[in-house]
Amino acid sequence: MNPYQRQSSPVTATGAHNLDPHLHRYAARATGMTASEVRALFAVASRPEVVSLAGGMPNLAALPLDSLSGEIADLVARDGMTALQYGSAHGVPALREQICEVMALEGVYGHPDDLVVTVGSQMALDLVTRIFCDPGDVVLAEGPSYVGALGTFAAYQAEVVHVAMDAEGLVPESLRQAIVAARRAGQRVKFLYTIPNFHNPAGTTLAVARRVEILDICARHGVLVVEDNPYGLLGFDGQTYPALRSMDLDNVIYLGSFSKTFASGLRVGWALAPHAVREKLVLAAEAAALCPPTLNQMIVSRYLTTHDWRGQIKSFQQTYRERRDAMLSALTQYMPAGCEWTDPDGGFFVWLTVPDGVDTKAMLPRAVTARVAYVSGTGFYANGQGNRQMRLSFCYPTPERIHEGVRRLAGVLEGEIDLYRTFGPTSRKSATGPQTPSPNTE
Amino acid sequence: MNPYQRQSSPVTATGAHNLDPHLHRYAARATGMTASEVRALFAVASRPEVVSLAGGMPNLAALPLDSLSGEIADLVARDGMTALQYGSAHGVPALREQICEVMALEGVYGHPDDLVVTVGSQMALDLVTRIFCDPGDVVLAEGPSYVGALGTFAAYQAEVVHVAMDAEGLVPESLRQAIVAARRAGQRVKFLYTIPNFHNPAGTTLAVARRVEILDICARHGVLVVEDNPYGLLGFDGQTYPALRSMDLDNVIYLGSFSKTFASGLRVGWALAPHAVREKLVLAAEAAALCPPTLNQMIVSRYLTTHDWRGQIKSFQQTYRERRDAMLSALTQYMPAGCEWTDPDGGFFVWLTVPDGVDTKAMLPRAVTARVAYVSGTGFYANGQGNRQMRLSFCYPTPERIHEGVRRLAGVLEGEIDLYRTFGPTSRKSATGPQTPSPNTE
Repeated sequence: MNPYQRQSSPVTATGAHNLDPHLHRYAARATGMTASEVRALFAVASRPEVVSLAGGMPNLAALPLDSLSGEIADLVARDGMTALQYGSAHGVPALREQICEVMALEGVYGHPDDLVVTVGSQMALDLVTRIFCDPGDVVLAEGPSYVGALGTFAAYQAEVVHVAMDAEGLVPESLRQAIVAARRAGQRVKFLYTIPNFHNPAGTTLAVARRVEILDICARHGVLVVEDNPYGLLGFDGQTYPALRSMDLDNVIYLGSFSKTFASGLRVGWALAPHAVREKLVLAAEAAALCPPTLNQMIVSRYLTTHDWRGQIKSFQQTYRERRDAMLSALTQYMPAGCEWTDPDGGFFVWLTVPDGVDTKAMLPRAVTARVAYVSGTGFYANGQGNRQMRLSFCYPTPERIHEGVRRLAGVLEGEIDLYRTFGPTSRKSATGPQTPSPNTE
Repeated sequence: MNPYQRQSSPVTATGAHNLDPHLHRYAARATGMTASEVRALFAVASRPEVVSLAGGMPNLAALPLDSLSGEIADLVARDGMTALQYGSAHGVPALREQICEVMALEGVYGHPDDLVVTVGSQMALDLVTRIFCDPGDVVLAEGPSYVGALGTFAAYQAEVVHVAMDAEGLVPESLRQAIVAARRAGQRVKFLYTIPNFHNPAGTTLAVARRVEILDICARHGVLVVEDNPYGLLGFDGQTYPALRSMDLDNVIYLGSFSKTFASGLRVGWALAPHAVREKLVLAAEAAALCPPTLNQMIVSRYLTTHDWRGQIKSFQQTYRERRDAMLSALTQYMPAGCEWTDPDGGFFVWLTVPDGVDTKAMLPRAVTARVAYVSGTGFYANGQGNRQMRLSFCYPTPERIHEGVRRLAGVLEGEIDLYRTFGPTSRKSATGPQTPSPNTE
């Protein structure tokens, strides 16, 4: 018996040579792991001549780096023995109490013991999926949904069923139908994953009346709700909306983050969960990374104590409002007829729908050639939808750059529309290069 | 149909009431998640009157907190916009290059591109297990093995098969037999997880001649090697041993960490993997936490640039050697006849075997009452073995405290041995309280 036999013949079923000698060893879940479209794009879009409307990086220019630097220095000098040491997987107690104060701004009153601090809310989502999802279990999510969540669900081989949205967010009746349909098909529906406020990528906010209705549907059908709320404090008029968790204490797992209201590079997020679930989350967190970095938790805690964090959030609101305004006015000024876009009242993103006949995924290389980048809508669906949509981020570039980026994008779109009118869909296909055309990109 | 039906009757098959209304919703993998013995113990053992020989916390007193504080302050003031921003899941490039220099001290020459920075090496282990292990797959590990690794393997429903160790580490012939036996039983053996240097918890080091043999066995049988090496630079005479990865570039995934050589609270570890595997690891890391904290990576990078990190490691070696010496001399002075222990030449741990008739797990509450804590050997086996063993850590308490702790422990052990000689095993059982005795604790 030659144990290397499968490696010695590195040709796959499709005839392509397989250069990974470990291919036969991977877990089933690893076969679904492919680079997200957003990620593949970042390398290209980060060239300085390209206006990137692609990334979701928060604007940190407003942070008081000098006073932060002083506080962190003091923290390390005084409490370094604690800050540089292992902590618990549950999180630093003082920070957990402060997070409860932050959540109270959106009507969430939780106990610090029911909260677990994570390495960004991405890790909270990973842990929630880990403890709830067996392969084949259904996760309901808005269509479109956050690309990073789709990656996590795929990593646990959960099946995503998208639920329709409109200008008021997730459509309750579509949710009800999706649950019933999945159950009829014999599927186990584990949870609804939803971003109620300033949705990524859709830019919409779930109407308050719908929140009650959606919670009711989920409770009646025994479906857990995972509420992801990284942008909730970034309403452009300082407005907040009642969190789903504030309306249902027993059936909602709430995910929060300091990535958008303070500093993403610290990777401090959290999950607030029903008590029994929280215990499982801590055990899962221990297996995943032992504990979140102590230093980072203490930096956030110190920042919340010593800085005017509410004032800082107001400053972020103002910055992002100006950028949203720049984007909307440029879209109005430049976009060709037939384009539609959402009108976000908070957060980072506008969701643009282009005229029939334009394929945003196929168009992307030409947009980058014209020095503007976006994320094709297809990245935000688990099922290949979204090729008439794109996500435009206004969080990171300056208003001037946003204006210029939208102008360039409009030019590319007009070229696409002209081509389509003149030659029909074939011309676009040939323009994408040597790829094999597939029916759903028409 | 009442979707709450299963919740409205919260009685489990064993008749116990179930207080978790979400119990029926968890994934299969979550049922195996229980608090580790080490974790449950930490709360008790952290009381100041208890000498804890239980935890594996590194001693940070020797760190130059003042100069570190200054460097971190400068980093945040100058590069805060980068340090507080999202980074890539792959890790900060400058740090990846420096890690290659660190690894070279143990003969490992890797390319920075083949390395992924993780939230401690625990996360590296989680990601490796995630991409390789389907439920039921076999992971081979030393018996005993690192408790945190066992937790991770359990979280992915991998089955751990322990391989015998002796004073020279993992026994090659036992490894060969374990692979053959698992294969004969129709099981898929995914990898050998091994800690070659200054083993946690055994305190032994794998003999160099055995390294060659073990790599050969694994290569011939097509079994991947996961080499976990957090303590490799903590040899008490400054000695290092050639890493397994230095002898086999294609079949070894190497895990490293700054937790023991710099600061555990920063949670900076890494995996060096064959190129194709590294790509999968980055994708898995993205789904798990988007990216490791940028600030922490830049702090480590700055520390490696501006501080005499090699000198700092020498200082750690000296501190831990003194503590190892304190523990070994106290063991020699106090331990009753019939006890045996390992003689570590590096790392944090001594592995103690007690006389037949003493159950280290059952004895623990009495030890804590006598104000000394350890970890029962059972925590380091996936199969309930180890109740005649315990792990003693000498990394954290001072030599004086270690001496006193071992003295207390010897007193407790003598009491146990006396009880056993006078009354036989029954007396021990009754002393553990109202638990139901089970055969394997006799």
